[in-house]
Amino acid sequence: VISEARLIDRFLAPFDRGTRVAIGPGSDCAAIEVARGQKLVSTTDALVEGAHFDWRWFTPAQVGHKALAVNLSDLAAAGAQPRWFLCAVGMPPSGAARLSGIARGMARLAARHGCALIGGNFTASKEWSITITALGEAPRPRSRIGARKGDSLFVNGVLGAATAGLASLRAGARQAVKAQLTPVPLVEAGLAARGLATAAIDVSDGFLRDLLRLCDASGVGVEVDCDALPIGPGATLDQALSGGEDYALLFSVPPRHRRAFRGVEVGRFVQGRGVKLFQNGQPRALPRSIGFDHFA
Amino acid sequence: VISEARLIDRFLAPFDRGTRVAIGPGSDCAAIEVARGQKLVSTTDALVEGAHFDWRWFTPAQVGHKALAVNLSDLAAAGAQPRWFLCAVGMPPSGAARLSGIARGMARLAARHGCALIGGNFTASKEWSITITALGEAPRPRSRIGARKGDSLFVNGVLGAATAGLASLRAGARQAVKAQLTPVPLVEAGLAARGLATAAIDVSDGFLRDLLRLCDASGVGVEVDCDALPIGPGATLDQALSGGEDYALLFSVPPRHRRAFRGVEVGRFVQGRGVKLFQNGQPRALPRSIGFDHFA
Repeated sequence: VISEARLIDRFLAPFDRGTRVAIGPGSDCAAIEVARGQKLVSTTDALVEGAHFDWRWFTPAQVGHKALAVNLSDLAAAGAQPRWFLCAVGMPPSGAARLSGIARGMARLAARHGCALIGGNFTASKEWSITITALGEAPRPRSRIGARKGDSLFVNGVLGAATAGLASLRAGARQAVKAQLTPVPLVEAGLAARGLATAAIDVSDGFLRDLLRLCDASGVGVEVDCDALPIGPGATLDQALSGGEDYALLFSVPPRHRRAFRGVEVGRFVQGRGVKLFQNGQPRALPRSIGFDHFA
Repeated sequence: VISEARLIDRFLAPFDRGTRVAIGPGSDCAAIEVARGQKLVSTTDALVEGAHFDWRWFTPAQVGHKALAVNLSDLAAAGAQPRWFLCAVGMPPSGAARLSGIARGMARLAARHGCALIGGNFTASKEWSITITALGEAPRPRSRIGARKGDSLFVNGVLGAATAGLASLRAGARQAVKAQLTPVPLVEAGLAARGLATAAIDVSDGFLRDLLRLCDASGVGVEVDCDALPIGPGATLDQALSGGEDYALLFSVPPRHRRAFRGVEVGRFVQGRGVKLFQNGQPRALPRSIGFDHFA
């Protein structure tokens, strides 16, 4: 068994010091300076053993990567530049050996996006959980509200690959499947869409479910061309429509920005409610399950 | 079983909308505006079933209160004005009935300090956990670094009462003990100490342990007069010295501000390292355990 102070030192070792950090990790509070003209964009997301990952399939570094990646994906949808994050770890007292690996995987992704660890917390608990709060800056952050009828629906990234990967892992495939183990948050795509996209959401719980959230929040419906969907390697159309954890980004883009937008156009927002699917020019039924709900 | 969207609606119901919130709860990211001249002060702390609370003794409202209180206590030590917070909940799918109570207790404390819920997350998990990231503003936030020899050690709040309360609960006392169940974060005391105290820490893991952290971070030692300690109702000196969860505040105050400072003066920072105790003018041995470590 190891003391909390040693745990903290071990965890902090691989991380760089951030920008505009007045008080960094190791104190009870962190203090940062938000740049003038920027809003502070914040999001929190947890990775829980059993619910989100399984030690049989994930290395500690992959768990660390994924815990931060799912948060950076939310900042990407908002069009925010990642800057800082806090990390609360719940872990069994016997689990200290995994901590350096978790920190290493997390630090590598953090360094790639210039996102600094500024604070955190350790708690003894039965199951592992890593709860990250990521902070970024954007002059005019996007939300899921703002799509209008006539806007195009664009996708960045691919759909279904993470679910296909999970199926392979469960089937005992020896090759770790990258989309499931180390999802890539599309931070640059999120920044590139600044000024062009009017609403956005990242696909964490499935294309249809997250698209429906964007539609409901914006008060519009949408028509999707299934033939245009960027389906990930090894994935079926059903996995692309309903599988979670893709961390692709969905955008609404008004007609005047359609040509400038870099991404795959897969549909059009319309008056009304809900999602309508088309395949080979014909209406197609929605799959019975439209995605992942943590509770239902 | 209840859907995630319903859980979110139910949880958000009792909360007020905050100040300078561009994007509030219900989206994947929140966006806020930090005031000019202010630093953003952030802290994260988790309340975990089994480790920090037990449903036999806590009502849901008390759990909600305490989860936020322990975070506001950190902001208080930093001298920050609480503004916003994010709340990640891990809960068993069968636990939805407790959610409204948790939200109610949390919202009451949040409203008292003008601190707005701006985001969060729900995850299905085996044990309950509530991980809050609290955000505040301060022009010059304090940390545990900055005490100098010759500074006085001041305490706001009382020591040992939470531990005495926990002992009563464990002994089956029927009266819920307030200090343990609903600790009060000393936000106003933290703000009043702006410009007077040079370093501060809140007593979450025990007076001696947290005082030692402040000393180590500041590179000084300290001499404490045990007879001056503000020992809480029902608590022994040992509980006051080593018991955790008091959420009292410890401050270093330079001689020039000593008279203006409102609090109990209990010692003096000195050259060297570590804590020396005095009782009836005589040196006193340190208790064998100096406080609570979550892992050691």
